[in-house]
Amino acid sequence: MTLIDIAEDEDTCARTGATVYVCVTCRRPGDPEDGPRPGLALARGAAKAAEGTGVSVCQVECLANCSRSLSAAMRCDGAWTYVFGGLDPERDAEALIEGVKLLARAEDGILPWRSRPEVLKRGLIARVPPTDLAKGNSKEETE
Amino acid sequence: MTLIDIAEDEDTCARTGATVYVCVTCRRPGDPEDGPRPGLALARGAAKAAEGTGVSVCQVECLANCSRSLSAAMRCDGAWTYVFGGLDPERDAEALIEGVKLLARAEDGILPWRSRPEVLKRGLIARVPPTDLAKGNSKEETE
Repeated sequence: MTLIDIAEDEDTCARTGATVYVCVTCRRPGDPEDGPRPGLALARGAAKAAEGTGVSVCQVECLANCSRSLSAAMRCDGAWTYVFGGLDPERDAEALIEGVKLLARAEDGILPWRSRPEVLKRGLIARVPPTDLAKGNSKEETE
Repeated sequence: MTLIDIAEDEDTCARTGATVYVCVTCRRPGDPEDGPRPGLALARGAAKAAEGTGVSVCQVECLANCSRSLSAAMRCDGAWTYVFGGLDPERDAEALIEGVKLLARAEDGILPWRSRPEVLKRGLIARVPPTDLAKGNSKEETE
């Protein structure tokens, strides 16, 4: 990626309000109740990975995907919104930022299947269309 | 409910763009592949239940919640977006419309837990905050 590509990506993400929401309440089965929340570590990692990308990272208290935590969601104007689960606090922060950058660039508003990070395939929980969903633009979520 | 309440509800739903998205691709395990899709029956039931309420019902091809179908989502301006699964095509159309009306009326943008239809408790899959999420307005999704 050139410096121009990076600047264009940053512009696209900022213009479309590209945002990653990370649940900071999430624990995985077996995590101690009073220990630091791994969801918070994921949120902090995502915020670090988002530096200079134009992506906003927003901590939220519950994405209601508790049985398949850790959880995060991503959105951009004019695109579908995606929810992911089964995330790892150490490993998956970069994948979230990479994913939302792909989404911001997607002309059809759909996160491309093949090129998205693996964890955004196997961890897919749900997606919701944009408010201005065009007819015929809800092709199925597979390769 | 009086006629005035009904008219106010309709106005609130229309003003906030209250929308129910129903996956019309969804089948339940065991449903024949070439039969009529139960997701479509749910969408039609929801559209009928939405008549005169100001709620839009939108058919979509996949909400990516296939393992826990039938699936639907709901949104209003300024509110959280909710995804539900395990819905029944005959039984749950009314509950979706009742739920989105509650959401449209919710001043904090959160679907109230106690008063929502039962299927919108046990069938909750995920929720995503509104774009203008105020700090401190992401209380956990429980009673």
